[in-house]
Amino acid sequence: MSGYSVTQIGTIDSWTGKSFIEGDLGAENLGISINATEPGEGSPFWHSHSRLEEIYIVLDGTGEIAIGDDIVPLSAGTMVRVAPGSMLAVRCLPDSPAPMKWICVRSGDDSLAGVGKDATLDKESPFPWSA
Amino acid sequence: MSGYSVTQIGTIDSWTGKSFIEGDLGAENLGISINATEPGEGSPFWHSHSRLEEIYIVLDGTGEIAIGDDIVPLSAGTMVRVAPGSMLAVRCLPDSPAPMKWICVRSGDDSLAGVGKDATLDKESPFPWSA
Repeated sequence: MSGYSVTQIGTIDSWTGKSFIEGDLGAENLGISINATEPGEGSPFWHSHSRLEEIYIVLDGTGEIAIGDDIVPLSAGTMVRVAPGSMLAVRCLPDSPAPMKWICVRSGDDSLAGVGKDATLDKESPFPWSA
Repeated sequence: MSGYSVTQIGTIDSWTGKSFIEGDLGAENLGISINATEPGEGSPFWHSHSRLEEIYIVLDGTGEIAIGDDIVPLSAGTMVRVAPGSMLAVRCLPDSPAPMKWICVRSGDDSLAGVGKDATLDKESPFPWSA
């Protein structure tokens, strides 16, 4: 058994785009993504999970997360837990002083392999921030 | 069903000590702690988990994690996955330019309640950085 694994994602300032880390780490129960979202940019579509719980951790910048009909403001230090079954989308505000840097962790009541692909995508519905 | 919950942990600069967040968020599958470790300080004891996987995410400062007989250097951007069964301890280096700011997430192949208290503590063995 490999007791541990290590990867290097760089300083927060160096993050760009979205990187999923669980594969690099060989994680079995924890999914994790490292994200940099430019001002005015955001999720390309809504998504929900049928079994996975997610926690969003915002480290820099300002934004918002839409969860169903609700909008929650995001800034450095905001943490949001989203339960399975909730449709969500994230964006960085157009006037954010910096790209929004955030981490998303996810896990279910089984291993990631046991849960499998549990995401539902909605590529049709408009975002609350759409014109 | 509550679809989501929100808490505010403040900017990284404001973190002090160790704060467990899963209770505030009502998380069911994900455990998460937010940590600030002063230079020269570290874990008060070794610990391992029998079922929970952990991922350590270092955001600032320099340190090291001991996993069994191995020592892995830590700096901003280092991520370490520790498998169940591995004894570990963490410290911030005495000459770290800043307190080490880090996040630990943990999860098992069942809900947190289903896994229960799975930690083993070792308060006797010396750390590799002990004189």
